[in-house]
Amino acid sequence: MQAFSDRLAAASAANRSLLCVGLDPDPELMAVPDAAEFNRAIVDATRDLVCAYKPNLPFYEALGREGFDALERTLDHIRDVAPDVVIVGDAKRGDIASTNTHYARALFDVWGFDAATVNAYAGGDALEPFLDYADRGVIVWCRSSNPGADEFQDLRSNADGGAPLYELMAKRAADWNTRGNVGLVVGATYPREIAAVRAHCPGMPLLVPGVGAQGGDLEESVRLGLDRGPRNLMIASSRGVTYASRDAGDFADAARTAAARLRDDINAALTREDAGWC
Amino acid sequence: MQAFSDRLAAASAANRSLLCVGLDPDPELMAVPDAAEFNRAIVDATRDLVCAYKPNLPFYEALGREGFDALERTLDHIRDVAPDVVIVGDAKRGDIASTNTHYARALFDVWGFDAATVNAYAGGDALEPFLDYADRGVIVWCRSSNPGADEFQDLRSNADGGAPLYELMAKRAADWNTRGNVGLVVGATYPREIAAVRAHCPGMPLLVPGVGAQGGDLEESVRLGLDRGPRNLMIASSRGVTYASRDAGDFADAARTAAARLRDDINAALTREDAGWC
Repeated sequence: MQAFSDRLAAASAANRSLLCVGLDPDPELMAVPDAAEFNRAIVDATRDLVCAYKPNLPFYEALGREGFDALERTLDHIRDVAPDVVIVGDAKRGDIASTNTHYARALFDVWGFDAATVNAYAGGDALEPFLDYADRGVIVWCRSSNPGADEFQDLRSNADGGAPLYELMAKRAADWNTRGNVGLVVGATYPREIAAVRAHCPGMPLLVPGVGAQGGDLEESVRLGLDRGPRNLMIASSRGVTYASRDAGDFADAARTAAARLRDDINAALTREDAGWC
Repeated sequence: MQAFSDRLAAASAANRSLLCVGLDPDPELMAVPDAAEFNRAIVDATRDLVCAYKPNLPFYEALGREGFDALERTLDHIRDVAPDVVIVGDAKRGDIASTNTHYARALFDVWGFDAATVNAYAGGDALEPFLDYADRGVIVWCRSSNPGADEFQDLRSNADGGAPLYELMAKRAADWNTRGNVGLVVGATYPREIAAVRAHCPGMPLLVPGVGAQGGDLEESVRLGLDRGPRNLMIASSRGVTYASRDAGDFADAARTAAARLRDDINAALTREDAGWC
């Protein structure tokens, strides 16, 4: 099977898009009550505008059995109508290795995600069961997009000349990348941190959430996150696309409009960086 | 509803036990193929010997839909036959707050766990949705039990006079404990770290995994993890109990024997500390 980064590059080029749409069905926000039906409409409306979809697993878990079914139907539908778009399971999973073996099975065998977000608090030895899936992306949660991200992630350690923890995490992620399947999550709300992570991790995909509802800077995120050669960048928006309208009559059209605008804004930023789709 | 720590104290006293049995159904190890049936037999054989059960969610997730059903049936059965034993959902969940809202719903509303393990990499602001469930235990993953735990958790930061990250996490967890519902995970494989965490977190439950297959020191874990007043300690064993025999004819009896031995060893350690059940 093709490497995740190659599939991501192909999907990005095919749709001329670095946009990753998060599929986070929230009963309080959805324009229609059924999560699978909601996602189907969003996917149908945006499938030519994205490089990736990113279901956020807790949103399904919070729906119980119905959520389990909705995730299954959503993944089947994406595979049917957009087989080349990559699917990232956003779950921030992480434990010791003997437990991560089961998380990896769930994410990569049961759900069949092309990539998954993971938590590396237990260190690199614990991630081996994920990394062993050489054809899947293992996207390490490096710098979160929330206001309190600095509480632990900015702590300057005694290692590596006083680098903050998130930078050390990025450096180690580059070391773990022996099979070429490691990427990182860095929030768009922290552009300077995106630049630092990119400097440590050339050739590795970055997943950048937080450009929509969370207020991250789109242009800075693209400029600083861009890789040399393949762009290796997923700019993720969830609420800004899927809840652009909460009206059952036009939510899918509104999602398409919002996704097209984001894709175009990203592409304009790419062009300014001499990295446009030619 | 009663506070988690009160329910834990009552369950511990009723069964005179600090033993938490992990329910981690692994198709390669189970004596019978059906996970729900396997767990039912383990629960029936050990329910008077434990203070807590701890289903590890990835083991269920890796089984797909069957795992979902098995977890549901297992929780129902525990509530039926051992309603006073606490149930800890071991899932190490953690993301930013708007996402943690959904993790908390899944763990506390959908599954109804009395407590859950969480990951605090995103900092204290992100944990609020968990902490808002004042009657549930929020058990922060502080010090993992794996060999490479030191990679990040031992980094000495510029904060708090150079304390290692796991100690800083413990101090912050004590700050987050305004509703009295925070606990910590500290591996039995690192007894010195248990003592440091206990010093920072009096009055807070500790979940200590790693005494069985991982080789942690039981007596040291009890001695150093014990709280003044209520014992506030769950000594967790999974493989050592549930896979004591892999024979369908005697696995439940073997689990009971292994659990009774662990409970007795823990109680002997308590007695040596003048904290026996009188």
